[in-house]
Amino acid sequence: MKFLELKRQAFEANMELNAKGLVIYTWGNVSQIDRAQGVMAIKPSGMPYEDLKPEHMVIVDMENNIVEGNLRPSSDTKTHTHLYRHFDEIGGVTHTHSTYATAWAQAQMPIPCFGTTHADYAYGSVPCTAIMTDEQITRDYEEETGKQITEAFVDLNPIEVPMVIVAGHAPFTWGKDANNAVYNAVVLEELAKMALLTKQINPVQGSLKQAITDKHYLRKHGQNAYYGQN
Amino acid sequence: MKFLELKRQAFEANMELNAKGLVIYTWGNVSQIDRAQGVMAIKPSGMPYEDLKPEHMVIVDMENNIVEGNLRPSSDTKTHTHLYRHFDEIGGVTHTHSTYATAWAQAQMPIPCFGTTHADYAYGSVPCTAIMTDEQITRDYEEETGKQITEAFVDLNPIEVPMVIVAGHAPFTWGKDANNAVYNAVVLEELAKMALLTKQINPVQGSLKQAITDKHYLRKHGQNAYYGQN
Amino acid sequence: MKFLELKRQAFEANMELNAKGLVIYTWGNVSQIDRAQGVMAIKPSGMPYEDLKPEHMVIVDMENNIVEGNLRPSSDTKTHTHLYRHFDEIGGVTHTHSTYATAWAQAQMPIPCFGTTHADYAYGSVPCTAIMTDEQITRDYEEETGKQITEAFVDLNPIEVPMVIVAGHAPFTWGKDANNAVYNAVVLEELAKMALLTKQINPVQGSLKQAITDKHYLRKHGQNAYYGQN
Amino acid sequence: MKFLELKRQAFEANMELNAKGLVIYTWGNVSQIDRAQGVMAIKPSGMPYEDLKPEHMVIVDMENNIVEGNLRPSSDTKTHTHLYRHFDEIGGVTHTHSTYATAWAQAQMPIPCFGTTHADYAYGSVPCTAIMTDEQITRDYEEETGKQITEAFVDLNPIEVPMVIVAGHAPFTWGKDANNAVYNAVVLEELAKMALLTKQINPVQGSLKQAITDKHYLRKHGQNAYYGQN
Repeated sequence: MKFLELKRQAFEANMELNAKGLVIYTWGNVSQIDRAQGVMAIKPSGMPYEDLKPEHMVIVDMENNIVEGNLRPSSDTKTHTHLYRHFDEIGGVTHTHSTYATAWAQAQMPIPCFGTTHADYAYGSVPCTAIMTDEQITRDYEEETGKQITEAFVDLNPIEVPMVIVAGHAPFTWGKDANNAVYNAVVLEELAKMALLTKQINPVQGSLKQAITDKHYLRKHGQNAYYGQN
Repeated sequence: MKFLELKRQAFEANMELNAKGLVIYTWGNVSQIDRAQGVMAIKPSGMPYEDLKPEHMVIVDMENNIVEGNLRPSSDTKTHTHLYRHFDEIGGVTHTHSTYATAWAQAQMPIPCFGTTHADYAYGSVPCTAIMTDEQITRDYEEETGKQITEAFVDLNPIEVPMVIVAGHAPFTWGKDANNAVYNAVVLEELAKMALLTKQINPVQGSLKQAITDKHYLRKHGQNAYYGQN
Repeated sequence: MKFLELKRQAFEANMELNAKGLVIYTWGNVSQIDRAQGVMAIKPSGMPYEDLKPEHMVIVDMENNIVEGNLRPSSDTKTHTHLYRHFDEIGGVTHTHSTYATAWAQAQMPIPCFGTTHADYAYGSVPCTAIMTDEQITRDYEEETGKQITEAFVDLNPIEVPMVIVAGHAPFTWGKDANNAVYNAVVLEELAKMALLTKQINPVQGSLKQAITDKHYLRKHGQNAYYGQN
Repeated sequence: MKFLELKRQAFEANMELNAKGLVIYTWGNVSQIDRAQGVMAIKPSGMPYEDLKPEHMVIVDMENNIVEGNLRPSSDTKTHTHLYRHFDEIGGVTHTHSTYATAWAQAQMPIPCFGTTHADYAYGSVPCTAIMTDEQITRDYEEETGKQITEAFVDLNPIEVPMVIVAGHAPFTWGKDANNAVYNAVVLEELAKMALLTKQINPVQGSLKQAITDKHYLRKHGQNAYYGQN
């Protein structure tokens, strides 16, 4: 059996997503890519977390062909591969229906950057895709979901903003690997909750001023970062 | 002792309802029907979950006669039997006072379909019954509750929308068996929470466009479904 | 050592209050009365729950004299004894700062009866006391708190509405014994949360119609009750 | 190895902060000062709580020099030392991004004293600092954060109000030692939540009247306090 380590990493990230309380029943999936091999490992569709084992992960290539595995991959597979094909630097993708991030998606609004907690992880608002046209829906729905996301990032750097909300649907996040994508899913849910509460306290609150956003993002990211031990 | 397996299934679904955190003290009940025998097993009235055993389940026929059991069945028994008599395809019924779904019931408003999380499980809004008239209340209250529900489904398919909120009261859900009815109760509570948060972010948000509702419902249901492993 | 059983019951109710998640640090207390002896057992002031033992309970008579115990009784002691002196039928009293009930107290508004969950336990709105006058505050503060409560019940039956919110402060609940008072504290917190959510969904929602309130209250209370096994 | 006891106390307070659920990943830090030695022990930057050991605590003097330790101290170190230099009577400082307190910080508004729960711990509103000017941000950011806080306390006693929210950022709390600072962080989060809920119930609710604020603060603080066992 090949791809053992890749499957293990995708499996552990899927289990971590569940452990962090972001998932109800089977509402979420995580994948990790092996760029050298041109394949990703992804959760099988509709499989309960309590039954999940590393060997259940499905190996899929970037044209959505199953390379290894007896189970059907996540129904969102084509969105994952679309993101890997267009965002060169990412190594993992996570999709959830986490409560607060999904509420913003349902409200079809970007999540404003109201504070340094947000700026520490995402450089500016978390974008919200356009709502899909009827014509798009009749095409390949999950591929079109991927397109909506990459179109929302035409003027954005997916490394600087590692998260998106899909209008009427729910969030996707990504990162340097599957584990980091899950980390960003947890962060996004908290940012989404804080942003809603902020609006409730002060309905006319504007975004955090740019200079603080810059300062906090650069405390944690880039060559002059000074947060953490590295 | 007959109905052993039926009691076990109803018992386990009742315990699952409690384990999922939808119940405070004794505020909920689940039943499962055996259509061949024409009876259901239902939780006894007011019995704490920590004391509940499979043999406590009460066997009741579709005219609300106790067929087996020493305890008084749930005070909502007549609502359950009414639903089984009118919704031919259902095998389990759940009643809870889960927080967010009950808030919608108290607000006497249907829960709009704001996103794909909702569309994955219910095809359109979750209906809210009419509020009971004074005259209805003087009749057989729990039977009348059942009537309110079935009247709210005159133009709806209970398989496509396996949940309802009773105005001024709380939700009922159903499914192919008791376990599936509990699953739908968990889903409804999350949909109710997400819908409230959506309204808080965007008070004028309209329902999800029909084409996406169709797409998501049919990803999971019907002969062309492609979610899960079956 | 006398009052062993009374102390045990008060102790267990205090521990249950904490186990139900209604208490942060030392923010709550429960007492139980022995009417024959004319004394109550109450939690000592400011004592962490993890250190609490049955023998710590302080025995206090109805004139607030310590009858037995080496610790200072709860700072709210005089409110408890006031309630026992004025509400003849109650056997236990609970005070918490539970989140949602306290928010209603801070908003200085009664909690409307929006649904049957509320009507099952309290016959009509949960009253909110008047805010204390400056002159009252300079008197015996905790005794005055008790007076505010009993004044709010001039036209109410404390058995039919076993809970109150003290304006600007927090809730008190009571019941046939300490354990039942804790039960009502848990119920009140849930009713307070549901009522807030109801207002958020429908800001102009009125109270549940009287006939349903009557029906539900009487399903559970009085000689024609048919909920539960007794 | 010196400072063993100081490190142990800082370590335990950091672990307690995490155990109380106020922290996501590494979003928080606690320090404790030894005034005789002129040093504090503080959490290392970006270190996960599950890996944290007492010996990881970094010893830093009041001019922000590392006195002992191989790890980089919290990126907020200069804010901590600024507070110790200006607030003579405090022994511990805590910084979190706890959800509700951070929402108030993002809304850039002080938290009003709406009730006795608040008055028991903070004598009046929890102040919100001014938002930093662009010029300040270009200086020493964490030192400037400290200055913003001490400027917000020009007319306030930091012992009477042991907490602050930094506009656009998040809260800091302090106390007689690290453990007490964590206690105040837990209290602040609950006060922030209750205050938001109070505004939701009654958007025009004013602050608690001064006489009750005085009464409750003085029940717990000062020479006539009568809460607790001491």
